[in-house]
Amino acid sequence: MMKIGLVGLGLIGGSMGLDLRNYGFEVLGVSRKQKTCQQALDLGAVDEASTDLSLLKSVDLIYICTPINTITPILKQLIPHLQPQTIVTDVGSVKKPVVEECSHLWSNFVGGHPMAGKAEQGIEAAQKGLFIKAAYVLTPTSTTPQLAIDSVGEIATILGCQLSICSPETHDRAVAWISHLPAMVSASLIAACMEELDPSVLQLAQNLASSGFRDTSRVGGGNPELGEMMARYNSSQLLNALCQYRQSLDTIIKFIQQEDWCSLQEFLQATQDARSNFL
Amino acid sequence: MMKIGLVGLGLIGGSMGLDLRNYGFEVLGVSRKQKTCQQALDLGAVDEASTDLSLLKSVDLIYICTPINTITPILKQLIPHLQPQTIVTDVGSVKKPVVEECSHLWSNFVGGHPMAGKAEQGIEAAQKGLFIKAAYVLTPTSTTPQLAIDSVGEIATILGCQLSICSPETHDRAVAWISHLPAMVSASLIAACMEELDPSVLQLAQNLASSGFRDTSRVGGGNPELGEMMARYNSSQLLNALCQYRQSLDTIIKFIQQEDWCSLQEFLQATQDARSNFL
Repeated sequence: MMKIGLVGLGLIGGSMGLDLRNYGFEVLGVSRKQKTCQQALDLGAVDEASTDLSLLKSVDLIYICTPINTITPILKQLIPHLQPQTIVTDVGSVKKPVVEECSHLWSNFVGGHPMAGKAEQGIEAAQKGLFIKAAYVLTPTSTTPQLAIDSVGEIATILGCQLSICSPETHDRAVAWISHLPAMVSASLIAACMEELDPSVLQLAQNLASSGFRDTSRVGGGNPELGEMMARYNSSQLLNALCQYRQSLDTIIKFIQQEDWCSLQEFLQATQDARSNFL
Repeated sequence: MMKIGLVGLGLIGGSMGLDLRNYGFEVLGVSRKQKTCQQALDLGAVDEASTDLSLLKSVDLIYICTPINTITPILKQLIPHLQPQTIVTDVGSVKKPVVEECSHLWSNFVGGHPMAGKAEQGIEAAQKGLFIKAAYVLTPTSTTPQLAIDSVGEIATILGCQLSICSPETHDRAVAWISHLPAMVSASLIAACMEELDPSVLQLAQNLASSGFRDTSRVGGGNPELGEMMARYNSSQLLNALCQYRQSLDTIIKFIQQEDWCSLQEFLQATQDARSNFL
């Protein structure tokens, strides 16, 4: 059975450890904080834990489960401890910049993105079965070893994920549409409502807001650090999506300004029809 | 006990009938279609039903529960059958144009908006308790009789609603923010994603779309006729909200273009903080 290393014991790393141990893998975990190491041990998310990356010197496969901006620096620190056959992967939500840097540093690297999560963060939020039915995207390049792809893909399937394999660019463009654009669209909704200057209208709006506002604003009320990071690392694909979005919005505004109700209804009919293709 | 009339036996009229009868009111219902009258009788949503408005000649209070564009025409047809003391109200989701016309036609009119609903429509979707904990807004004018406000407000409370009273303008401005703007924002998201021209990216986006996309796009995939009607009858408040929204969106786009990640994170922090005021 493979020996697995986890760097970063938050929601994703912790949940992965719980499941992997459940399926019989030996799991070694590294966190910056001793307290998190202890929590992971107490929860049963790891067999051993340490604040020192050298703990992972004998593992077969390492998941880097830390924020996007730390993945490359952590890989650099890991390399002195790794054996040449050790496979390294990550769980970052943007792939192109991460894969470019990491593949260059470590040939046995394959980028990955398990699309599971919840509002809570940290090891306290870790749970078994978090990845069941979640999409798991692997983003190899032309030089990624097949064994690395197969190994990470096999474990994704064991965790209950639905595996997709595509280029880092295709991944980043797709998630710009269905994940990063919705976050910005939704945040703009909250920001716009905050601009209502009449306190009686604002108060009433706050009292009347129900499921429609709740759902549309949900991802815009998410973790600001995560939102900023997605935008920073996927800026060109996100800008492309935002510009297309603004055109769609301007079309609606134009129909209303021109009182072209027939075209507006056709537009809304088309969006109603199209939504089911995504869900 | 008051005798209540319902015109329009769809989701709202039907659900109201079920609850009102449950609380001991006598309920007479009118629908354009004989089949709907029979369904309402079979479901126990009304005591009597007819396709003829003259059925309502002896009731104390009438709810017009039909689409916004039909409220004024129905009131005109009702008037020959009404006694002077009969109170008339409606359930339309935009108030200013409706209240202006109807108050002029019938002095004993008070506009209302019970903010309950679900994806399904029609008498088949009617259910008991639909209005429990829902907001119910009454929008009197300076000439609305106090008895009309009190009577409709009392029944709203009996139905389990949380009552708000404000001017038609304040109502329309508040719902533009929390109901009509989200519908347009959400529809634009679906429309933008439909513009992806690379079939492999579109296919992947459709496969990867999960809870974030589902929630943000939900109200944009709603009933197109209803969306068009909200926009048509609340066009000036909705345009105001849309223009403010576009400014918020442009602020986000500017931060990303300028790679001003610090400001973007502050923006997202502010929206995260503000969202809880609405929910």
